[in-house]
Amino acid sequence: MTELRIDGRTPDKLRPVTFERGWSKQAEGSCLVSFGDTKVLCTASFTNGVPRWMAGKGKGWVTAEYSMLPRATNSRTDRESVKGKVGGRTHEISRLIGRSLRAVVDMKALGENTIVIDCDVLQADGGTRTAAITGAYLALAEALEWGRERKFIAQKATPLLDSLAAVSVGIIDGVPMLDLAYTEDVRAGTDMNVVATGSGTFVEVQGTAEGAPFDRAELDGLLDLAIAGTNSLTELQRQALAR
Amino acid sequence: MTELRIDGRTPDKLRPVTFERGWSKQAEGSCLVSFGDTKVLCTASFTNGVPRWMAGKGKGWVTAEYSMLPRATNSRTDRESVKGKVGGRTHEISRLIGRSLRAVVDMKALGENTIVIDCDVLQADGGTRTAAITGAYLALAEALEWGRERKFIAQKATPLLDSLAAVSVGIIDGVPMLDLAYTEDVRAGTDMNVVATGSGTFVEVQGTAEGAPFDRAELDGLLDLAIAGTNSLTELQRQALAR
Amino acid sequence: MTELRIDGRTPDKLRPVTFERGWSKQAEGSCLVSFGDTKVLCTASFTNGVPRWMAGKGKGWVTAEYSMLPRATNSRTDRESVKGKVGGRTHEISRLIGRSLRAVVDMKALGENTIVIDCDVLQADGGTRTAAITGAYLALAEALEWGRERKFIAQKATPLLDSLAAVSVGIIDGVPMLDLAYTEDVRAGTDMNVVATGSGTFVEVQGTAEGAPFDRAELDGLLDLAIAGTNSLTELQRQALAR
Amino acid sequence: MTELRIDGRTPDKLRPVTFERGWSKQAEGSCLVSFGDTKVLCTASFTNGVPRWMAGKGKGWVTAEYSMLPRATNSRTDRESVKGKVGGRTHEISRLIGRSLRAVVDMKALGENTIVIDCDVLQADGGTRTAAITGAYLALAEALEWGRERKFIAQKATPLLDSLAAVSVGIIDGVPMLDLAYTEDVRAGTDMNVVATGSGTFVEVQGTAEGAPFDRAELDGLLDLAIAGTNSLTELQRQALAR
Amino acid sequence: MTELRIDGRTPDKLRPVTFERGWSKQAEGSCLVSFGDTKVLCTASFTNGVPRWMAGKGKGWVTAEYSMLPRATNSRTDRESVKGKVGGRTHEISRLIGRSLRAVVDMKALGENTIVIDCDVLQADGGTRTAAITGAYLALAEALEWGRERKFIAQKATPLLDSLAAVSVGIIDGVPMLDLAYTEDVRAGTDMNVVATGSGTFVEVQGTAEGAPFDRAELDGLLDLAIAGTNSLTELQRQALAR
Amino acid sequence: MTELRIDGRTPDKLRPVTFERGWSKQAEGSCLVSFGDTKVLCTASFTNGVPRWMAGKGKGWVTAEYSMLPRATNSRTDRESVKGKVGGRTHEISRLIGRSLRAVVDMKALGENTIVIDCDVLQADGGTRTAAITGAYLALAEALEWGRERKFIAQKATPLLDSLAAVSVGIIDGVPMLDLAYTEDVRAGTDMNVVATGSGTFVEVQGTAEGAPFDRAELDGLLDLAIAGTNSLTELQRQALAR
Repeated sequence: MTELRIDGRTPDKLRPVTFERGWSKQAEGSCLVSFGDTKVLCTASFTNGVPRWMAGKGKGWVTAEYSMLPRATNSRTDRESVKGKVGGRTHEISRLIGRSLRAVVDMKALGENTIVIDCDVLQADGGTRTAAITGAYLALAEALEWGRERKFIAQKATPLLDSLAAVSVGIIDGVPMLDLAYTEDVRAGTDMNVVATGSGTFVEVQGTAEGAPFDRAELDGLLDLAIAGTNSLTELQRQALAR
Repeated sequence: MTELRIDGRTPDKLRPVTFERGWSKQAEGSCLVSFGDTKVLCTASFTNGVPRWMAGKGKGWVTAEYSMLPRATNSRTDRESVKGKVGGRTHEISRLIGRSLRAVVDMKALGENTIVIDCDVLQADGGTRTAAITGAYLALAEALEWGRERKFIAQKATPLLDSLAAVSVGIIDGVPMLDLAYTEDVRAGTDMNVVATGSGTFVEVQGTAEGAPFDRAELDGLLDLAIAGTNSLTELQRQALAR
Repeated sequence: MTELRIDGRTPDKLRPVTFERGWSKQAEGSCLVSFGDTKVLCTASFTNGVPRWMAGKGKGWVTAEYSMLPRATNSRTDRESVKGKVGGRTHEISRLIGRSLRAVVDMKALGENTIVIDCDVLQADGGTRTAAITGAYLALAEALEWGRERKFIAQKATPLLDSLAAVSVGIIDGVPMLDLAYTEDVRAGTDMNVVATGSGTFVEVQGTAEGAPFDRAELDGLLDLAIAGTNSLTELQRQALAR
Repeated sequence: MTELRIDGRTPDKLRPVTFERGWSKQAEGSCLVSFGDTKVLCTASFTNGVPRWMAGKGKGWVTAEYSMLPRATNSRTDRESVKGKVGGRTHEISRLIGRSLRAVVDMKALGENTIVIDCDVLQADGGTRTAAITGAYLALAEALEWGRERKFIAQKATPLLDSLAAVSVGIIDGVPMLDLAYTEDVRAGTDMNVVATGSGTFVEVQGTAEGAPFDRAELDGLLDLAIAGTNSLTELQRQALAR
Repeated sequence: MTELRIDGRTPDKLRPVTFERGWSKQAEGSCLVSFGDTKVLCTASFTNGVPRWMAGKGKGWVTAEYSMLPRATNSRTDRESVKGKVGGRTHEISRLIGRSLRAVVDMKALGENTIVIDCDVLQADGGTRTAAITGAYLALAEALEWGRERKFIAQKATPLLDSLAAVSVGIIDGVPMLDLAYTEDVRAGTDMNVVATGSGTFVEVQGTAEGAPFDRAELDGLLDLAIAGTNSLTELQRQALAR
Repeated sequence: MTELRIDGRTPDKLRPVTFERGWSKQAEGSCLVSFGDTKVLCTASFTNGVPRWMAGKGKGWVTAEYSMLPRATNSRTDRESVKGKVGGRTHEISRLIGRSLRAVVDMKALGENTIVIDCDVLQADGGTRTAAITGAYLALAEALEWGRERKFIAQKATPLLDSLAAVSVGIIDGVPMLDLAYTEDVRAGTDMNVVATGSGTFVEVQGTAEGAPFDRAELDGLLDLAIAGTNSLTELQRQALAR
């Protein structure tokens, strides 16, 4: 019997997931996350204060930037700094990460502080945006803790409303599968990224027909699989934060 | 009794939709589409031949660019040409339109021809990307007809696999609503754009929690509403093409 | 007898000119102007206040930006936003429009208010810059009225010193002609754009030998024709404002 | 009696004009031109061959680039290379110089050769574009001679149809004046640049009302003055070429 | 007695140096190098063939790009991709790394192959350019081996002429010190980077007076210290390659 | 016997050096420097005040920008303003000039004043960066004198700590040579630029192996030759300042 997936996983299994918290000596929060061979360094930079246009409203701001090292991928890609512009895909993912993180932060409770999350893909093997979001949550949690210890955040405030995790799902040869590696992603007819809270509610759902359009039943199957995946990631995040 | 919506629509109604086909004397296909006060000029540029890196494979290419005039919106936005870079939102929508259109085109049947769809928002009142996709389909259909008449496309080929329409849906004060105008969009807690085929299958589903995360039941309600909306748009497109 | 011009006009006739005032629901002033198949959407954005470097002098500012949609022309042109820079021709025309409009505005009477005129060419068939100036004057007039109604401009102030119109003239096969369409423009040996006030004085005169240099007699003939043309446009503007 | 002009000139006099031919050891043609304190280094780069899109038509191409050193002016201007974009004024003048030079070159006689003229303003005191054109003509003439000696241009071909010179004129306090220095230019109500051939015909006429619009009589007066000025420059160019 | 250096090193000691060879699963050669808390990921991308302008000469090319993650440093730096341009320091270091590597490669022996070395600083604590060069050499060596195994490089060819290592030295309070950490670098009056071969000859010497100019005796002292440092690094590289 | 150098110089001789002080009527300090056929226009722009981020510290700032005219070199180079970015080499040299000048300026004595030095290469024949530094020193000295006369600099302050000169040296066919012309520079195996004070101490030493790495003895020989060269330049600068 041939295996469905190159690494022997069943369709509903995540790849091995690891979180290396506190990877950076420089950042206020950091996490080197890996989903199989996908490795993303997430750092959180905490600044007391907000941009001038936001000042005086008692609210903070969280934003994110995503990027890939030129040789994270199988063949080298030119640097966006050298090309002089940020590509559409990079823009799109940076916006997704920032928007997702803001959904679990109470900006009033954060107070007038700014957190920038940088997600740099050191090695890419599919699912870089979902690994980035899942790791970014841990870097964010560390940075919030750092801010609380230094009293930039009020002791009674609870800026984190929930935890956040993300996973990709897709349909390959008719079978819905969880957490696609690059070679699987290429073959998937439908591709979906789901960002969910620790409570199992949706923050973002993005499904795309790469090949044939998909019907409601397929969509439902993918959503079931995705929520099971983010639930597992939530548990792994809980363990990482407990260390 | 107060009205739910500023223009008196029921939650499941589209705004008045019009298609002005053949608006441009210059383009091979064109349509000025309006969804209420949102007006988008869609033009299709047909070129015989494909970029060098695609040549010799017997396949064509369809791509799209979206942009907004600086005073399409209520306050003026600086031009991206003057700023010297395309913004993230613009990039994201251009990619969405191109990807969606490609889902209903058989590239083999198109043959080695390139179609570029430009969607320029002349006036914006919410739902610009969904109006753009819905109008772009008509411009594309015209351009394909133009190509067939000039024998750039084989007589027996049927490059269009299906029709394509898109609509936005959102939850406002707990009520799912169809085709949000700008003031509604701003108030929506959850915001979703759905691109669907004339057969009622999904090409793209993008749901975002602008406020609180949403649950499965809310997601299901929005999908129901969206499909009803795209079905109505499909019928209007059919009438426009029949004229 | 063969016709001199493709559309049967005599050399001294304008193409059909229309002004669709108040086209935009968003802008403080707007006009969709057409000179034959050339269509330009002109919007005026009125802002109370001036840039910091001008503040405190009791004077206002008027500026303009011109741009063409990528498929306004017969073959598609790449977007300047995508190329990352504004081209020389675009710069040149934007500067011409702004300079011309400022010649009929009393900046003291305008007070510390800023007006930005955007001229976006939706369809191009020659004479886009002259159509833009002629339509921009109407958008400007509307925006000044808007500012006066909201008391941003003093009731007694008369910021508009005169009306403004522009037209192109050229010599084709030895015959001076008014308001050249694109195919005529290409054939013209000498090409001139004239911007004039309602009183018939010159604001800008730009004559260029595309082929052989021109002599004083030819220059004089072109100026006569141009002033006759701007006088007709002035009358059409007067009627449009009276509606 | 007070002098009309700061340097004691009568209204119809040029400033002292000098041409330093062959200034550059590197370029195929060069001239350091000065109109009073305005100094422009003009170099002509001759390349055998034309850009690919022009090849095979037996015709050449002439183009120009204008730029100012950052401290050519009284206060320092940021470099366009550092700002990352070429400004509108620079673009406009580069296009003017190139267009003007092409008006006196027979592209067929030039053959498939390309000449790029660089006009770099080393010191600016008004009239930089007219000095640039006048000096550029000499650099061009040298480069054509260079090309003929090396047989890139046929012995019997006469690519230069005429000579070319340019001068500014303006109305200051009601008096038309020739060749404005910077302090005069600032005061001028109407400002005109005229490019003319050695035979006294017009190549380019650009008149702008900086203050009040101008009438036909003023325009005529300025044209008379300008042609007298370019005639004098033509004579000085003839002498410089004879050396 | 107080310690001279924050980490207790004597002036002539390197920080702990580690080389993690083969870090990347994607690149043809890679090394994660650390000099104390400075960590640089070096990847080598091997391409069979050379850019068109170099083709047909039987020679290869080696080039390098250096960059820093935004939060590699103590406070966050804006991304160069977002700013739209590569900064002077980045350019300068990229050029230094490429030039240095080329000094130990025989381009004829490499044959028509291209190697691009990317050095991305994941964490910065002084000496990032010297760590980058020292690690880049190992990535280069791996990539050359990869190319030889796939026969892109002739079996008898020996493209690597020597090994390459680099170290920084500086004078702090009058004492010459080896391999400066960031806090030391800031205090150094004179700062020098030396790139040397395994044989102990110089490839690049860059000494800069940050404070007072330095004399010949100080220069000599720094060079002695640097060569001792690169000799130690050479030995560590030899061990890493032997693993 | 054949001559070692194309212009008959002995290896330890400078090319003819001239300084044209006060070349610019616009700048506060200026010098047109030539080293043989290399000609660089250096202007110093003195501004009372410092950038906002430096204000209130009682210290000044000196910075520099280097650029080459497109046809300074034997074949034309595209303008960096047109390419939209400053190249690595330009950046590197601008930084070198600024850093070198700052080494001989006491920023406290300068007070809150800013000096920008522009070095524009009008003609290039090797050694442009060393000629630029040597001329920039004279422009700087003039601008400081200008600032003192206008009392922007305190009468007792001596912001200039020393004079500054720079020269290139290189090894050609085994012979160390001073002040390389372009054709020599191309042949040099090792290339070094040395910036030194009038007292003979080093401000910057940059040696690069273009071919084979160099040993300590070669390095020592080059340094000897360079210091002799900068000493001669110091003497010529002294004479120029005395005029």
